[in-house]
Amino acid sequence: MVAGLAGIAPGRTKGPRNAWYVVAFSDEIAEKPLARTILGDRVVMYRTSSGKPVVLADRCPHRAMALSQGKVVHGDRIQCPYHGMEYDPTGACVLVPSQVQIPRQMRTHSYPSAERWRWVWAWMGDAAAADESLIPDHRLFGLADDDGFHKVARFLMHINGNYQFLHENLLDVSHISFLHEGFLDSGLIAKTPPKTEVQGDRIIISRRVTEVVSGGYARVFGLEPGTRVERELRSEVWSPNLNVVTNYFSFPDDPARPAACRHSPFAVTPETDTSCHYFVASASNYGEAQQGDALAQTNKLIWDVFLTDKEAIESVQRSYLELGERTPDVSVKADEAAVRFRRVLEQQLLREAPAVPDSAGRLQVTVAG
Amino acid sequence: MVAGLAGIAPGRTKGPRNAWYVVAFSDEIAEKPLARTILGDRVVMYRTSSGKPVVLADRCPHRAMALSQGKVVHGDRIQCPYHGMEYDPTGACVLVPSQVQIPRQMRTHSYPSAERWRWVWAWMGDAAAADESLIPDHRLFGLADDDGFHKVARFLMHINGNYQFLHENLLDVSHISFLHEGFLDSGLIAKTPPKTEVQGDRIIISRRVTEVVSGGYARVFGLEPGTRVERELRSEVWSPNLNVVTNYFSFPDDPARPAACRHSPFAVTPETDTSCHYFVASASNYGEAQQGDALAQTNKLIWDVFLTDKEAIESVQRSYLELGERTPDVSVKADEAAVRFRRVLEQQLLREAPAVPDSAGRLQVTVAG
Amino acid sequence: MVAGLAGIAPGRTKGPRNAWYVVAFSDEIAEKPLARTILGDRVVMYRTSSGKPVVLADRCPHRAMALSQGKVVHGDRIQCPYHGMEYDPTGACVLVPSQVQIPRQMRTHSYPSAERWRWVWAWMGDAAAADESLIPDHRLFGLADDDGFHKVARFLMHINGNYQFLHENLLDVSHISFLHEGFLDSGLIAKTPPKTEVQGDRIIISRRVTEVVSGGYARVFGLEPGTRVERELRSEVWSPNLNVVTNYFSFPDDPARPAACRHSPFAVTPETDTSCHYFVASASNYGEAQQGDALAQTNKLIWDVFLTDKEAIESVQRSYLELGERTPDVSVKADEAAVRFRRVLEQQLLREAPAVPDSAGRLQVTVAG
Repeated sequence: MVAGLAGIAPGRTKGPRNAWYVVAFSDEIAEKPLARTILGDRVVMYRTSSGKPVVLADRCPHRAMALSQGKVVHGDRIQCPYHGMEYDPTGACVLVPSQVQIPRQMRTHSYPSAERWRWVWAWMGDAAAADESLIPDHRLFGLADDDGFHKVARFLMHINGNYQFLHENLLDVSHISFLHEGFLDSGLIAKTPPKTEVQGDRIIISRRVTEVVSGGYARVFGLEPGTRVERELRSEVWSPNLNVVTNYFSFPDDPARPAACRHSPFAVTPETDTSCHYFVASASNYGEAQQGDALAQTNKLIWDVFLTDKEAIESVQRSYLELGERTPDVSVKADEAAVRFRRVLEQQLLREAPAVPDSAGRLQVTVAG
Repeated sequence: MVAGLAGIAPGRTKGPRNAWYVVAFSDEIAEKPLARTILGDRVVMYRTSSGKPVVLADRCPHRAMALSQGKVVHGDRIQCPYHGMEYDPTGACVLVPSQVQIPRQMRTHSYPSAERWRWVWAWMGDAAAADESLIPDHRLFGLADDDGFHKVARFLMHINGNYQFLHENLLDVSHISFLHEGFLDSGLIAKTPPKTEVQGDRIIISRRVTEVVSGGYARVFGLEPGTRVERELRSEVWSPNLNVVTNYFSFPDDPARPAACRHSPFAVTPETDTSCHYFVASASNYGEAQQGDALAQTNKLIWDVFLTDKEAIESVQRSYLELGERTPDVSVKADEAAVRFRRVLEQQLLREAPAVPDSAGRLQVTVAG
Repeated sequence: MVAGLAGIAPGRTKGPRNAWYVVAFSDEIAEKPLARTILGDRVVMYRTSSGKPVVLADRCPHRAMALSQGKVVHGDRIQCPYHGMEYDPTGACVLVPSQVQIPRQMRTHSYPSAERWRWVWAWMGDAAAADESLIPDHRLFGLADDDGFHKVARFLMHINGNYQFLHENLLDVSHISFLHEGFLDSGLIAKTPPKTEVQGDRIIISRRVTEVVSGGYARVFGLEPGTRVERELRSEVWSPNLNVVTNYFSFPDDPARPAACRHSPFAVTPETDTSCHYFVASASNYGEAQQGDALAQTNKLIWDVFLTDKEAIESVQRSYLELGERTPDVSVKADEAAVRFRRVLEQQLLREAPAVPDSAGRLQVTVAG
């Protein structure tokens, strides 16, 4: 795949380090430590008693035990379960139970983190370059608190496939007429030529169709079966972490009815070189905010629809692991956005080559490529 | 093992490519696609509405998804589940839903296939060399439709061991007195010197014994316990895929009783370098054709007997994976046929070195050796 | 870890070959063959009809099947299940069923073995150097038959971690105040400076504390809750296989009460480079010898306490497998004994470099490092 694109490895493309990545839903982070692997780094996350999320390398510098198996003490420290060493949110050791002096090297990496738009973000590269203003402004996507949208943190799905494949899946919208037949369109999307725009590092693919919603499609979007809609479907990537799918519906048979909009931001966070986390959220400006069982049913419906994406991506990953550079990869016109995305990703990877070096205090795991 | 034999790798011997291999029982192939790995190649098999079996490389050339997760459409095409591309039995793409023009490279490999003797065969190498007359004539083995034999397609057993070990197991018949004690002989076979013949690429090992059948041995062969038999036991390899074990029984205490013959063709098909498919069939010219529960019970009995072969081969494979070239391998006289088989296999492998090159349209998986 | 220490590999340190290792509890070895992997070698163990334990390389020299899948015949031979070859306790083949002559190379390695102190020991290196007087004299640890101690072969725990980590765990006693909080001390051990002694290849770390036993701590040691004890806690390593933890309790509030002593010998036997067997025994000179349910309950209690060691070591091993030489390893004063142990182990490994060569008859498995 993608022969000639530097940094794009067949089925093993790494995530650029100098970037913000969603590492958790806000409500996942509490006092109890949570372990997760991000870009090959094992991290531990917890929330201090003052409410701030902390993201540390999940390894005690003393004997390398996972700190996530320990607990939070004194409100903001994490204690290693093995010998009781304690670390503060900066990663510095602040207690060695058996002695007064603390060795200077007794420190674990603290990843810059931020909590925005109901998500916790971490910066996986050079801390000096971490600039929170680089986090995409989710007011554009209906995820601010005062924007009149119903917000739902839907679910986290784990995929045994490289994150590049999931981004391409999201940009390569024609698959919904087949892989998700009956659930996300009336069958017209694959047949409708897309419009592809490039705005710097962002790529937007969009289509306009007029169709009648029914069955699973009507249930997924909360529209009445039989409704005729004029629909604009956009998929926009904010490489390397975010893709936002937006649906605008207007109702030609009922011109007085206000247009409906749903934004679905997807955070696509590399776990290892061959797996990723898929954080799925959405926000709607129409209908009622669902609660309880109704919400659980909708989430289950969407989960099941997305399971077929997981199956597809894992099948693709399996082919790439077997064949590597020899894996077939023939593109068609509908792949223009996906192919342009590869070039954007290549530029992002080249910008930080040679790779961010390991500093003494930096505990970086690199999964063999 | 087998130091000095080119192409024979300890525990990882590849199958020659330019050969017919049984890839399925006929009744396994229907409209629903079936995925299987053969010589390291992932293939998808299905039957067209006109009844012809099709064997394709199981990968869509567009984005490498497994075609076996799709479905058969229009009678003879397989549709990729991801974006709806359709392929005909030659492996050519005949539909891209989002555009009219079909890229020339949009093609998956179609393996020459044939349906013979209740088995589906595929040719895993150079298609130009695929000659159906090379498939061994199973009329010799009681598997034609008009030969007076009862035919049974018994079962498919998966073995985590190199196919060479299974062929050697079948040629190295003395093991039945120990590994299958009480089920396949009266204990005399190991003590009886074999006769070994070589006919070109074929090797036949045979023994003649006079013994009394009883217990499991009588049940396996459907003979009355206590019967004295003059028995000829032959094992004949048609390298690289087939071994046919034949038992001839005559009855010295009842000269009028017609001789009984059972042919048991075994197809030994490499899956990966370290695993194989064991297709087990048989045909008898005596007794009643079993049906229903009686047949199921006999199959279960034989399955259980053969499970010990699987255990033995997997134990051997484990040793080879650990020790490689350093694995002990001391042969005795009873191994003559197995050792000669290695030389035949070596010649077959040398004949196609350098290996069949990958052509553009050929999707060949090679499992690292 | 341990940069600059030859032979000490991060998370993959091999066991010295010229040494005795506990390979089984005495009561594990009977006529039925037992398979176990020791220092990467697959061995089969059985007991002859005259009561002697036999330890052989678990591979038939004929076709490499595991002898442990066979059975003991004629009192002292093991029979290969595949073709019936028989081997005596020296590893020599003494029967090939299909012929009279036995090939000279038909021999499997016989490991020198000894049965001492309710344990079976094997010498994994050069047989000529196997000297039983090198086995530590367990009369020092209360494991002789006439020493007035109650002896218990507690259990065998499998750990997916290098044996070096388990030795360091046992020497690095301060962890009991945290990892085993409430079960092995009152919390004072981590805060009490240790005394470290080196006697040749042996290292002893000891602490003296005055504390009150309660809860799990009282149950583990069979002392009455609320008792004030003067305690000496010693951990002594006999590299490369043994660690003996000894607790001496005296009772300042009841000077007439005899001092109580418990020895806990732990055999730490490498399985592969990344896993080990943890043989746990103990002997007490006080209280009643437990039997039946009471013993089972105590063993369960100790098993559960030791499971947290297993968790810790497996977490450490996981870090080392990921990071190798780059794994953090910052030592504190309480690690003096563990750090000295590494030097002793280094010397033992250097003493036998270049490695013991494979002789023709020696079936040595080396797990890739």
